[in-house]
Order: sequence, then structure tokens, then C-alpha cells
Amino acid sequence: MSEFFTLISPEEAFNKLISNLDFDIKTHEIATEDAYHRVLSEDIYSPINLPSFTKSTMDGYAVRATDTYGATTSLPTYLTLVDEISMGTKPSFHLSQSEAALIHTGGMLPKNADAVVMIENTQKTHSSEIEVYQSVSIGENILNIGEDVTKSSQIMPKGTLLRPQEIGALMALGITSVHVSNKPIVGIISTGDEVVHPSKTINPGQVRDINSYTLSALITSAGGIPKRYGIIEDDFDSLFSTAQKANTECDIVLIIAGSSVSHRDITSEIINQLGDPGVILHGITIKPGKPTIVGIAQNKPIFGLPGNPVSALVVATILLKPTISHLQGSKIANFTPTIAAILSQNIPSVAGREDHVPVLLTTNDNTVYARPIFGKSNLIFTLVNSTGKLIVPINSTGLIKDSQVDVHLY
Amino acid sequence: MSEFFTLISPEEAFNKLISNLDFDIKTHEIATEDAYHRVLSEDIYSPINLPSFTKSTMDGYAVRATDTYGATTSLPTYLTLVDEISMGTKPSFHLSQSEAALIHTGGMLPKNADAVVMIENTQKTHSSEIEVYQSVSIGENILNIGEDVTKSSQIMPKGTLLRPQEIGALMALGITSVHVSNKPIVGIISTGDEVVHPSKTINPGQVRDINSYTLSALITSAGGIPKRYGIIEDDFDSLFSTAQKANTECDIVLIIAGSSVSHRDITSEIINQLGDPGVILHGITIKPGKPTIVGIAQNKPIFGLPGNPVSALVVATILLKPTISHLQGSKIANFTPTIAAILSQNIPSVAGREDHVPVLLTTNDNTVYARPIFGKSNLIFTLVNSTGKLIVPINSTGLIKDSQVDVHLY
Repeated sequence: MSEFFTLISPEEAFNKLISNLDFDIKTHEIATEDAYHRVLSEDIYSPINLPSFTKSTMDGYAVRATDTYGATTSLPTYLTLVDEISMGTKPSFHLSQSEAALIHTGGMLPKNADAVVMIENTQKTHSSEIEVYQSVSIGENILNIGEDVTKSSQIMPKGTLLRPQEIGALMALGITSVHVSNKPIVGIISTGDEVVHPSKTINPGQVRDINSYTLSALITSAGGIPKRYGIIEDDFDSLFSTAQKANTECDIVLIIAGSSVSHRDITSEIINQLGDPGVILHGITIKPGKPTIVGIAQNKPIFGLPGNPVSALVVATILLKPTISHLQGSKIANFTPTIAAILSQNIPSVAGREDHVPVLLTTNDNTVYARPIFGKSNLIFTLVNSTGKLIVPINSTGLIKDSQVDVHLY
Repeated sequence: MSEFFTLISPEEAFNKLISNLDFDIKTHEIATEDAYHRVLSEDIYSPINLPSFTKSTMDGYAVRATDTYGATTSLPTYLTLVDEISMGTKPSFHLSQSEAALIHTGGMLPKNADAVVMIENTQKTHSSEIEVYQSVSIGENILNIGEDVTKSSQIMPKGTLLRPQEIGALMALGITSVHVSNKPIVGIISTGDEVVHPSKTINPGQVRDINSYTLSALITSAGGIPKRYGIIEDDFDSLFSTAQKANTECDIVLIIAGSSVSHRDITSEIINQLGDPGVILHGITIKPGKPTIVGIAQNKPIFGLPGNPVSALVVATILLKPTISHLQGSKIANFTPTIAAILSQNIPSVAGREDHVPVLLTTNDNTVYARPIFGKSNLIFTLVNSTGKLIVPINSTGLIKDSQVDVHLY
């Protein structure tokens, strides 16, 4: 069956996956103070005007603007100082003509005041009089009710990822709980007759499980919840029953390839038997990571990942991470920050394949250099020794020494 | 006292802080699988060779290289196929002259085998014979014992931030627990007579606490543990006793300014009374964030942050985040990834001041544009409406429309 699939690009693979998914976002209510990095599952409208009172944006004197007209340094205007406005209170008085009241940043303007003169443009002549050296216009140095946020306006749409500023903004409005999308649970099934649990002593021929743990960390960082199903025997029945359990209990399932030649066919067959449509693509134009399988069963994504830990991490970064965001209704981040660096040696590639190459960044004379880390076995230590990776675009035949490249931090 | 301090740059401020700190890193042991994004407090040496046996890096046939010399497509060499090597087991046989054994990627080489012929360069003629079309040299397509990691070599120094690949690498070596630095506890003291808890109904003149929550989220993301001390009355005694408690219970203390004119002097005085050296700097050349106070008492950093939520977040990002890393013994990240964008309007600035300007990123015809978000009140909503920020360098008098800028994602 698998030979009928044509390799497609990572971007096409992701689009094909999400266009074939039909799912409801599961949500729950959470205290806003605990909602950092969660995704809103409701549109948020402001229950109040912000500010909720006319306030000063400066330390100075609340005045009636017309009383200051014409004031200059050589010909100051004199105003009667009537009171100081305490922070957090509503002034009990109102301003009459030619009166001023001391006000602090964030203080509430008294009735009839319509501007604030900055303290720097005044001089106190005695305890109940100030000189004003500069006129202010109506509204100057004040914020009107609702000028930041109008009551009932939408302030955050569904799908917003909550950063520190969103948490603070919700609190400013008194919204102390919100509905967010559940964190997707990602089942991880490791396979391979040579793979043993890391706590076990290894015999000749055996290796310890790496993928269950690198992928758990990546899932956590991406906002998902990893659920490990351990290392499953490399036979159809054991693998199928574990995959079926994971497909029921989780929102996404990862089946990590063993090394047996027939393994990929087993994974495809299992995904097909779990439910329709089963496997939707087999093989992506990426190195490492080409033998990736993507499927859907019970409307849940299932990824067959290569067993090599570096390949599995590359594929998880470009396909699994955005899928975890997508299942929470988050808008895909269109902007990926990178570090500009000068490539210190040629990197050969092949057109039609996107290469992900680990690099070590170093600085010399304020210039950042990127040196590719090649490892014979493509083992996890090539990533440990790297600062980040660069991507050789799909249509490029390689990158030339001394050219500028964009490095993605791990 | 404060008037004797000269404004210094954010970078100088951080360096001055850490050069005046004399502290021991507190550590504890943790399961490696739970250590994602923690900082190692011990040097890690490999307890084993990796690989721990000679293994194949390809699917193919284990051979004695000399048996393949001279093999070509037109003149293949014939080898006797003796067995298949099962994954995870030590082969029970050894290769004699002109023998080959089927091996999978990661499989263990039998005794006397010293190379692997890729399956693509062979043809099976019958059940116990293969044709080899290409010679291999000794060591080809195999990994020798210790070729990735040598036993007893240092694989990660103290101070390493554990990414997914480090977690996986530790597991590969059977290191299932590690010593990491404790997460610094950061005490947050909010002040201001106008500030009330977000769950409270606000009266005219009052605002809800924002800073306690934006800073908690930022501290969490930076690897610290926020500990909120609530909103403290704006008088010396209440503030001093809370600050003293926080200075004892936490590793870092934040005192967020109220709006009263005298507040900054109170904060300075409190920091000075908490212990030597007290305030070490007052005012940094940054906008927003200029009226920042940095001090040390009981060998713990104490920050007096501006009350404006945008200013407080900017200062926390550039001073508090690296301090949280530093207290864990982490090496400071020298590389900050950014997004290149075209500035859509002029941004005026002043030489001698580093301006942090929120921007909204948009894409048009594959070009990314950055539009500054200016807010009259510099309220938290300017950050909610922004994708990230750009930094106008300290010696620049502004940035020109259509120039390329580097945007830091929030």
C-alpha cells in the first residue's frame, strides 16, 4: 500500500493532516492566574470601561484647561491650589475657576477638571498657589473613561495564546477565570526489539529508549501532555492493541519505528486498521525524517515517526508541535524567530528535499558563525553539541561557506 | 541618597548586579525525565561507551571488508549468507571468510565482521548466497564502540540548560536522575493605595493589580517560582516588614512602585535597611523602565520596578530573566532569535536611551512589516495588541520608515 504514496513537503503534509481532521475542541474553566501559555476557547469582551474613571497620565496639577490659556514662562498664570487628590479615591470636591489640585499619575480627576499640567511646568509660590508656565489644551495629560478599552468591546478572540500581558490584561478587567482548550494528550509508543528502558542494564546489541523522553520534553514545551506507553514488542498484535488503547485515551498518538525492515508496513497497517481514513501520507521530503507516516483514526492524528532520535525530533518539531497548537484552536504562529549567522563551511544538499542541519553557533569579533555538526550515526549527541539548526530550503542544492543563514534555536 | 546615582545601561546594570552577588547555588536531585528546562548543577561524565557494541548504521550485510575488494556491478563478488542478526541480541556466530550475515540498522556486528555492505549494493541469488556489487573498506557503515561517546568523557558541563536532546542523551547513557539547581523563588510585592485585588469590584479612583500576574507568568516562563505577597499599603513600616519577610523566604524580591511621589525614596530606603550593600544602582537608560532600582540584601537581588505594567515587564525581561538564569548557574544565552521586518513608520528616539517599542507584525507579499503600537497610557493593552518589540539602540536617535529591524517576539 505504502508504495502508492508520493513524498510531499512538510508544509503540504501538515495542511493535508489538518484539512482531513474534524474535531471539537475540549475546554475547561481555569483561574486566569494559572492560564499562562494556555489557549483561550472563548471570545473575551470587556465587562468595563478602562480606565473606569478620568485619570491623570502625569504627576502634576488637575486644572480647567481654559484657565491656563496664554500661560508662558515670562507670563505665568496663577492658580489657587485647593487640595491633593489621594490615590485610589474619588475627589470629594470640584474645581472652580482658576483652581488647581495636586494629582499623581493614575489619580482621578475632580469634577470640572479637564486637563493636567505637568509638575515640571509649574512652580509652587506658596502653600495655596501655583504658577503655571505652559498652557494645556482640553484632554491633555489625561485619559478619558474607556479610552484604553470600551465596555463590551472584544479584547481577545478565541484561539489567543495567553502571554504574560494577556494574563495581566484579563486581571485588569476583573476577569479572574477563563475558558481554555484542554492540553492535548499525546500518547508515545516506542518499539524495537533492541530498545530497553533507560533504567535497565544493557546487554550487547541493546540500546536504551531515547525517543520516549526527548518527545515527552518536546510535547511538554509545546503545550501538550505526554503519556508514555513504554516499549512495545515489534509484532503486529502487541502493537495494535497498544495503539488502539492510545488512540482511545489520547488526542494524538505517536508510533516510533523499530529497526526491523517490515516495521513501517506494520505501522501503516495498524493505522489503517484503527479507523478511517487511516494512513493519509507516507514519506515527506525532509532529511532527516523522510520515512514519516501520517494518519488519522477516530478523528485523531497518528504519526509514525522514524526511530532515529534526531529524525524523530525534527519531524516532531515541524509536524507535531503545530498539531498540538491546532488541536487547541490556536492560530499557527506565522513568525519564527531566528539568529543570523555566517556559515563556516559548505553544506551540500539535494533539490526537492528540505535538510535540517544541526549547527554550533560561536561569536568572533561580533560576528556570529554557524558550524554544521555532522555525526556519523546521526545520534542524539549531534543535537546536544548544537546550538540550533538551519534549514536548507527544499529547492536548494546546498549552502555556500560564508553565506548568511538563519539559525533556529533548539 | 538616590540623586547620587548616575543612569547606567541595562547591560551595565546586569553586570553590576551579578558582580556584587556572592551566593551558593542550591541544588537537588531529580528524575531525568522530569528535568526538562532545568539547569544541571553537576558535570556529567559518561558511565559507558556509546555505542556499547560495534553496530551497523545501515540495513545490509555484515561482511569482512577484504572479501568485497574488487567487487563491481559487472564483476560481483559472491558471499555465503549464513544468518540474520536479530535486533537487540549478540550474534552467536562469527564470520568466516567469504561469509555475510543480514543485519539491520543498529544491529550488532558478529565477530570478525568489520564492515557493512548496503542492501542496495547487493542482490540475493538464492537463500544462502548474495552478490555484492561494490567493495567496502574496513569500518564502512559501522560505528565502533565509543565512537559517539567515550566512557568517562564529560558530556555536559554544570550549568547546562536541559533541552529535549539533553534529556534523551542522559537516558541513552542510563543516567535516570541528575542534580539540578533549585528554581529561584521570586517574591512579588505590589504597592499602591489605588491598587486592589483583581477579584474585587473597583470604586472610582481604583485599579486592579496587573503586575503581580504579568510578572508571575514571566517568572514561570523564565524558570523561577513566583510567590505573591499581595498589595501592601504604601507606608514604610508595612512595606518594610513585608520586604524583610520576602527577603528571607525568597531568592529574589520585586518591589513594584506605587504612584506616590515619595514611593521611590521609600523603596530605596527599605532596600538599604534590609542589609548591605543595599541599593547599588538607581535608574537605567531605558524607555520604558528608567526609574528602576537594583539592590542586594542578604546576598539576594532586590528590584524596585516601575508601577506601570509595560515598564515593569520590559525591565523584568531584560534584568529579572537573566538573573533567574544566573542564580541557577546557567550560562547566559548569548543568542537572541529575532524576526527581520520592515518598519512601517518612523520611530523617534533619543541618544543615550534604549527604547523598547511594541510592534504588530503583518505579512504582505512575503514581506514582514512591523508597525509600532503607541498607547497614550502605555497600558498593558499596547502589549496585548503587539506581536513583539523592537529595540532602538542606546546610541540611535530613532529608526527610519522602510528600514529593516529585528523584532523580538513576546
